[in-house]
Amino acid sequence: MSVQAPIAVAGPVLVIGAGLIGTSIALALTRAGVEVCLRDADAEQLATAIRRGAGAEHALQQPSIVVVAVPPRYAAAVIADASKEFPQATITDVTSVKAGVLKQAIAEGADAVRLVGGHPMAGREVSGAAGARKDLFDDRLWILTATEQAAADRQENVRRLVTTCGAVPVLMTPAEHDQAVALVSHAPQVVSSALAAQLLPANEQFVAVAGQGLRDMTRIAASDSSLWVDILSQNAGPVSGVLTGVIDELQEVLHALQEIANGDPDHHEIIDATLKAGAKGRSRIPGKHGNPELAFAEVAVMVEDKPGELARLFVAAGEAQINLEDVRIEHVLGRPSGLVELSVRPEVSDSLIAALTIRGFDVRGTA
Amino acid sequence: MSVQAPIAVAGPVLVIGAGLIGTSIALALTRAGVEVCLRDADAEQLATAIRRGAGAEHALQQPSIVVVAVPPRYAAAVIADASKEFPQATITDVTSVKAGVLKQAIAEGADAVRLVGGHPMAGREVSGAAGARKDLFDDRLWILTATEQAAADRQENVRRLVTTCGAVPVLMTPAEHDQAVALVSHAPQVVSSALAAQLLPANEQFVAVAGQGLRDMTRIAASDSSLWVDILSQNAGPVSGVLTGVIDELQEVLHALQEIANGDPDHHEIIDATLKAGAKGRSRIPGKHGNPELAFAEVAVMVEDKPGELARLFVAAGEAQINLEDVRIEHVLGRPSGLVELSVRPEVSDSLIAALTIRGFDVRGTA
Repeated sequence: MSVQAPIAVAGPVLVIGAGLIGTSIALALTRAGVEVCLRDADAEQLATAIRRGAGAEHALQQPSIVVVAVPPRYAAAVIADASKEFPQATITDVTSVKAGVLKQAIAEGADAVRLVGGHPMAGREVSGAAGARKDLFDDRLWILTATEQAAADRQENVRRLVTTCGAVPVLMTPAEHDQAVALVSHAPQVVSSALAAQLLPANEQFVAVAGQGLRDMTRIAASDSSLWVDILSQNAGPVSGVLTGVIDELQEVLHALQEIANGDPDHHEIIDATLKAGAKGRSRIPGKHGNPELAFAEVAVMVEDKPGELARLFVAAGEAQINLEDVRIEHVLGRPSGLVELSVRPEVSDSLIAALTIRGFDVRGTA
Repeated sequence: MSVQAPIAVAGPVLVIGAGLIGTSIALALTRAGVEVCLRDADAEQLATAIRRGAGAEHALQQPSIVVVAVPPRYAAAVIADASKEFPQATITDVTSVKAGVLKQAIAEGADAVRLVGGHPMAGREVSGAAGARKDLFDDRLWILTATEQAAADRQENVRRLVTTCGAVPVLMTPAEHDQAVALVSHAPQVVSSALAAQLLPANEQFVAVAGQGLRDMTRIAASDSSLWVDILSQNAGPVSGVLTGVIDELQEVLHALQEIANGDPDHHEIIDATLKAGAKGRSRIPGKHGNPELAFAEVAVMVEDKPGELARLFVAAGEAQINLEDVRIEHVLGRPSGLVELSVRPEVSDSLIAALTIRGFDVRGTA
């Protein structure tokens, strides 16, 4: 990594909660030479974290920062308790919902001046200290949510904690954070589940013709429901707002389709408007490396489903000095082969096709 | 391909409509040695198709089968006209909506005994004869929809046409077809658009924290709206049915969230029920090679974004004799690296991790 190392946060840092996120933070800080101590009600998790080199068991040190990394339903109380126990320390947390948790923590006695909320965007659901990784946050966004009362130096402390962990800080108010994750994560989870739920009573033969579109749209519906009930409940207001927008849009289309089904064809424009708004909305999602998503050329190749075939394909692309921007594998029902779609910058797609064809690959066209 | 070649359909086959699908069918039949002739109102498309070796311009031959491959809004009339012009021929089409089109064609004078509808599941939206490929249908599903009046030998003719094109025939009634595609394709398209439309008025900073989940859910929202307005309008009834189910499910969750937001926490079970139904529905989607989707292990590896890096990764997997079931590349905002998730059968994930680690790869954990 050629990025310059940031100034490390001043320790000692106390991490409360030695689960996946807490232990990963402890490992990342330890990697940077910061003194870390840990605490967890679960002695086994704590022992695992310490054995993995995440830090020492917390004794009598006065921490400069306390990181609360406990499940959402306990976060507010633990934040308040930590604020009272360590009256000098900066307090932060990693809860995936912010406004309610911070408000409740302050109501329960947390010192708002020293409290700066946080939420690392660290993706995967693997749980426990055993799954922790020192590089879990490298290059990831980490949203910081200071309330209005938070002191500037406390915010700077937490920002430094974040960069020391390898992440990229993004500042939002707690309410903004909750709206942002409602929009990009929580409401989409509900929509995915609601769509996937329609498959449950469906004829098996119908489900069998599902293609990549439906697979993509229902992938997150496979997530753990108990975790999500917690998250959705704690962010009920903002998620409701986004869902209301989705339902309104769906109802407009539904109404138009019902009119069309009843013989009144004069409702195309409403459907067209929703489809066009969707295409425009989609185009706002940033692409690779923070650029607006580029229109890549796609090259489709049919490869046999056996070890080494994908390797041969990627070696060919590498030999031709072509950088693959994305890869999708589409499986074909009942056949020992798969269609691999390679996304490349448009200007190199011809070179890629030539390089693959000359090596005997079954190139199926471009889009 | 080790699959035995099927008995080729008897020609000559007349393809009406030399667009992507029509020309691809003509090329696939020509590949199998079947005599093909073509017709298109657009002289340029026709010339392109013929120049590409898709067949001859239609003259005086009496076709054994006529394939109608025109846009949905013209399909019924063209089917009816073809049925009258060629009173001996079997008539089929490739329209992506079936019940209404076939009914209207019969109402306009098509002979129901000789008419067998069809819909190849051929994926990509590339248009025109220039984009046609002789192998577009290889290993793809092709739904056949005979009405009750269709004669058995006519159905067998069309089935043979499909296998000659390299595809796998699936039999459904027209109504079943329309319900199936409403469920797995048309309603998901509307849902994706309705969700993506919520991004349009959103704060840019909110959209910027979008992850892979939202990307996957809004990918198909980028599709061409005019094509989709046509498809949705022609399948208005079945799509309305599925959308009603989605909206009902969303409204139950919305209601529960609003109650929770108003301070009544006793609504978790409704949310949990939707999430669980979604997970179960999702698990019904067939996985690779027609098996119910297997629970693969995922191995995450951070790779630099430069030519050859993916190749090195896949070579390592190939050398270890490990078959990759799926590959996902997750891009990291603002950084020259990407997280690659490799899906493998759970029993080989340890071997894969070992093989990658020994070759110096930055393995980030498993899920």
